[in-house]
Amino acid sequence: MSLLKSIHSPADLKKLSPKEFPLLCQEIREQIISVVSSVGGHLASNLGVVELSVALHYLLNTPQDKIVWDTSNQAYTHKLLTGRREQFHTLRQYGGLSGFCKREESEYDTFNAGHAGTGVSAAYGMVEARDQQGLRHKVVCVVGDGAMTAGMTLEGLHHAGGTNRDFIVVLNDNQMSISKNVGAISSYLNRTFTGEFFTKVREETSQLLGAIPHIGPDMQKMARRAEELAKGMILPGLLFEELGFHYVGPIDGHNFEHLLPTLENVLKMRGPVLLHVITKKGLGYQPAVDNPVWFHACPPFVRETGEMAKKAPRPSYTAHAVNTLIKLAKEDRRIVAITAAMCEGTGLTAFEKEFPDRLYDVGIAEQHAVTFAAGLAAEGMRPVVTIYSTFLQRSYDQVVHDVATQNLPVAFCIDRGGLVAEDGTTHHGAFDFAYLRHVPNMVVMAPKDENELQHMIKTALSYDGPASVRYPRGTCLGVPMDQQPAVLEIGKGELLREGTDVAIAAIGVTVGQAVKAAERLAEDGLSVAVINGRFVKPLDDELIARVAGQTRCLVTVEEGSRMGGFGSAVLESLAEQGITVPTKLIGLPDWYIEQGPQDLLREKYGLTAEGIYQTVKGFWEQLSTKGGEVRARNVRRETFSLRGESLYHPEGDEQGS
Amino acid sequence: MSLLKSIHSPADLKKLSPKEFPLLCQEIREQIISVVSSVGGHLASNLGVVELSVALHYLLNTPQDKIVWDTSNQAYTHKLLTGRREQFHTLRQYGGLSGFCKREESEYDTFNAGHAGTGVSAAYGMVEARDQQGLRHKVVCVVGDGAMTAGMTLEGLHHAGGTNRDFIVVLNDNQMSISKNVGAISSYLNRTFTGEFFTKVREETSQLLGAIPHIGPDMQKMARRAEELAKGMILPGLLFEELGFHYVGPIDGHNFEHLLPTLENVLKMRGPVLLHVITKKGLGYQPAVDNPVWFHACPPFVRETGEMAKKAPRPSYTAHAVNTLIKLAKEDRRIVAITAAMCEGTGLTAFEKEFPDRLYDVGIAEQHAVTFAAGLAAEGMRPVVTIYSTFLQRSYDQVVHDVATQNLPVAFCIDRGGLVAEDGTTHHGAFDFAYLRHVPNMVVMAPKDENELQHMIKTALSYDGPASVRYPRGTCLGVPMDQQPAVLEIGKGELLREGTDVAIAAIGVTVGQAVKAAERLAEDGLSVAVINGRFVKPLDDELIARVAGQTRCLVTVEEGSRMGGFGSAVLESLAEQGITVPTKLIGLPDWYIEQGPQDLLREKYGLTAEGIYQTVKGFWEQLSTKGGEVRARNVRRETFSLRGESLYHPEGDEQGS
Repeated sequence: MSLLKSIHSPADLKKLSPKEFPLLCQEIREQIISVVSSVGGHLASNLGVVELSVALHYLLNTPQDKIVWDTSNQAYTHKLLTGRREQFHTLRQYGGLSGFCKREESEYDTFNAGHAGTGVSAAYGMVEARDQQGLRHKVVCVVGDGAMTAGMTLEGLHHAGGTNRDFIVVLNDNQMSISKNVGAISSYLNRTFTGEFFTKVREETSQLLGAIPHIGPDMQKMARRAEELAKGMILPGLLFEELGFHYVGPIDGHNFEHLLPTLENVLKMRGPVLLHVITKKGLGYQPAVDNPVWFHACPPFVRETGEMAKKAPRPSYTAHAVNTLIKLAKEDRRIVAITAAMCEGTGLTAFEKEFPDRLYDVGIAEQHAVTFAAGLAAEGMRPVVTIYSTFLQRSYDQVVHDVATQNLPVAFCIDRGGLVAEDGTTHHGAFDFAYLRHVPNMVVMAPKDENELQHMIKTALSYDGPASVRYPRGTCLGVPMDQQPAVLEIGKGELLREGTDVAIAAIGVTVGQAVKAAERLAEDGLSVAVINGRFVKPLDDELIARVAGQTRCLVTVEEGSRMGGFGSAVLESLAEQGITVPTKLIGLPDWYIEQGPQDLLREKYGLTAEGIYQTVKGFWEQLSTKGGEVRARNVRRETFSLRGESLYHPEGDEQGS
Repeated sequence: MSLLKSIHSPADLKKLSPKEFPLLCQEIREQIISVVSSVGGHLASNLGVVELSVALHYLLNTPQDKIVWDTSNQAYTHKLLTGRREQFHTLRQYGGLSGFCKREESEYDTFNAGHAGTGVSAAYGMVEARDQQGLRHKVVCVVGDGAMTAGMTLEGLHHAGGTNRDFIVVLNDNQMSISKNVGAISSYLNRTFTGEFFTKVREETSQLLGAIPHIGPDMQKMARRAEELAKGMILPGLLFEELGFHYVGPIDGHNFEHLLPTLENVLKMRGPVLLHVITKKGLGYQPAVDNPVWFHACPPFVRETGEMAKKAPRPSYTAHAVNTLIKLAKEDRRIVAITAAMCEGTGLTAFEKEFPDRLYDVGIAEQHAVTFAAGLAAEGMRPVVTIYSTFLQRSYDQVVHDVATQNLPVAFCIDRGGLVAEDGTTHHGAFDFAYLRHVPNMVVMAPKDENELQHMIKTALSYDGPASVRYPRGTCLGVPMDQQPAVLEIGKGELLREGTDVAIAAIGVTVGQAVKAAERLAEDGLSVAVINGRFVKPLDDELIARVAGQTRCLVTVEEGSRMGGFGSAVLESLAEQGITVPTKLIGLPDWYIEQGPQDLLREKYGLTAEGIYQTVKGFWEQLSTKGGEVRARNVRRETFSLRGESLYHPEGDEQGS
């Protein structure tokens, strides 16, 4: 590690001779493999861009020159070269270095990212900012070929290519985004390497034109132009040339003798330039080369074998969800599944194995994924979009404008709802309840356990309109499973415990914690009701009203943004029904949640049984000790309805449970 | 109108001879001009696709064959041909025909749209649905060149081009989306017609190759290939060919002798085909040809002159907002404005005139617009994204993931917040409070009048983080204007009236109505406080608590979704502060709002002074007549705080007003 240790900033890198770079890269790879094998992370992509990162920092003058890493899950070498080597072992840990770029972390990190496809837009914004301010530094955006399918990237290239600003886009082409690439652009990029025919065409065209003896100046110009045309067709640059970029490449992204002089030239070019660099995911660690998909974002693993360090004790919610989908798809030919380049992450690989023709991987294109599903649904299919909560944000307008407005039966299996741990800020599924709840026609569900999950997926796929089921990252609870998934009544919650002092209304994974908290509160002498909300929308107004009518106060719990989420829905329901009852909302606060283990974050944000217990207890004590202001239950609650009759029926029928 | 009258469905169209089509088209144009001049609508684009629509319905077998109209603001001819001629005069009126496609309206309308760029995705979903079900009908998507800049369209083309399904995309190229097109794809499409050089190149290349006397079979193949290459470069199809589409065109979209045989051929082709059709916006009505931008979506006009039927009595909020931007940009060189193809709609034309280098029209690319702004802000600029509320939905993830997560100072001028009238369902700005409020770091404002608007824009552009100002479609109130825009205190509402019985907390345009309602209620003997919320986020918790503490009940009013919006925020605030008070939320209900005049819709949804008056009065009466359940003011309210001290200070300092 002697070389890497000597580098405290890119200035130190410039003191090395390029001849030393291969050794440096070896040390960097060693460092990355060592840390990621112990803490998990994005291994394959990072091993692929070691040389590229070194070359960029060697030739650029960062941080004055700006490097924007699209998605920024490939910035480990960048971090190691920019003064963060000593903290590198804290990668992705609570309080440690982020696995992505963070402006808060370093002046070398120019733009935070975690979702693919934002880089070109952000970097081009920096280009315009530079020119507006009369500055002269370089702006380089490194974007993976996977992100080329994202509409945003194309929007950005389109805008930038239509101007003549100095701007460098490095296309890091590893022929593999997260899953294997799909669609036209991927096949376009691949043609370079498989198209022997084209190579031959180029050579022969060239000969053909060279063979013509006497051509006048016009025809000479013509001939050169024709050669360019032919070349353009053979090399993969034409698409980018058409978008207004000067295309350079492809070059070997692991060979400094190609990288350095080409990059040096590119840095001197004016206008928008696209440099096409070919890299290999996982290079330097054979298991990652062999299985780049698994090593895209991997848990800790045993370095010697490449195997997972410890297996999960139980199957994941992800696996359960997909098993249910497979079961239902066997019975209903109309069910097809859609993923946006997350076939593995969302567990759909198993579905694909069973139904290869009924799985659509559309690439990193979340907007298209949802409207494509709407089109399928409009013509009688039963599409299910399986997607992470954080990535569905990209499709908000498609949910509002394409699916829900037509009340189309698109099912959403929303994976990674709530806290996701090490990927942190950009990946927590904090907002889905809040951004889906106000969408008309949407059904919004979250199961308390894996058994309810299967019922909810069945419910979503049986419902004649848009419906979502949101489940967490991680292993299931291990509850007994019903033999068959069953359709739940839409909008009906479940009363898990009766009680007369406090009512806890929880949703999703927090339900189990709420029940535990209630048991402890009962030991303290409190009578605590627990509602499993099941539906954020439509909310079970009747159950909420009935239980709120029997208790002195209400506490809501959700693993999601407290603003606009489940608790907020409960407050609206109470207000609408004319019930005033002291209510406390437990959920994620109004800031971006940091990275850290799920357990730790749940503890920190009061979402564990202990946290709920403490909050409820504190709430109760405050209510009870406010002296004259607290009155007997039957006196202190206002109950009225705008429809002229009370909706609060303490003697009403019991339901749920 | 003899021909048009004979057409009750596309079957009747097939009975005509193509020779009669030009006359039919004349009748259709007459009908469109006549209706749109009296009710307003999308004139220019509809006049451009008359022949194309006739040709498609003549050759296709709709509704079995599917036509998907991207954006669907060009479907008037389609409506006239599919049994809706007699209702056509009700276009865009309350209860009448929609200005867009509506599945609810006709079996010929395959997919609802209003936002650009969804067509290819939806149509390709229908293609897969067809093939999954073993059906054999055609699916044709008509998409304007403007929507080619939308990332979604490219995502859709990319997916479809990567497969080999039978699918026809008709590129309706009028070289004009809403504003003039910008960027690379536009320049790409334009090259066809301006590139005389390329035409020459094609001819000469052809001659060149023809001139070589003896070339063997390989070389002959080569030569043909080279000619194709040259042709590909000259004709604008290569981009689409690269995306996997078979390219046909360009053809004249107003000439049936080109349209019919080409379309007939295209319908026989297998795999994905893109047919490039050149049309002229506004054809058949000279004022619309001369000014297609104004006639893109125009109000009623005088047919003879092309002038607006009646001028607005006062300037619009839009104009006021842009005037403020211009004023501020004169003082601050860092301010730049960004629009996504809505330069005219958002009033930025005036800004562009003043600062041509500081206005970015990125085309229909809302995602890029916002992240581009984030990039500008990251490097020291003060970008303002000027955008309609409904279109900002497309950028939700960019707001969450790119702007707010880094707390970047991007200002959002959100035009058309609330009800927009005739454009209806897809265009109402119903959700912005709900989808922005839960985003950490966001400041969410809405002014009560144009004077407050200028202060809020100044506030947004002075604030060191993301901030939005949302204002309505329509004319201002005509209030006196302060000389200079001033910075408001973030998170401070305004107490407009003191009162002890009812508190009304309103936001945005509803504030004036709430004041009027309060005045009437006062005449009835009620003491009514009125709060101008100003900030949906951060909410003025203190003011809400103080006023709620002095009154017996609270009513919130907003022109936006009641779910998750301003009222919901007030409920959360009250709960957090331990205040239980009967609260009623007035706002838009949980369904998609229909088209209709703003006044009518406001009346229908209880947002006028009269509506607020009635709701408050009813609420008050119910509270007062619930017998034993209503107690004296000072007894019935619980007030407590979890921090151990009351936040309810009836004797606290007064603020605001």
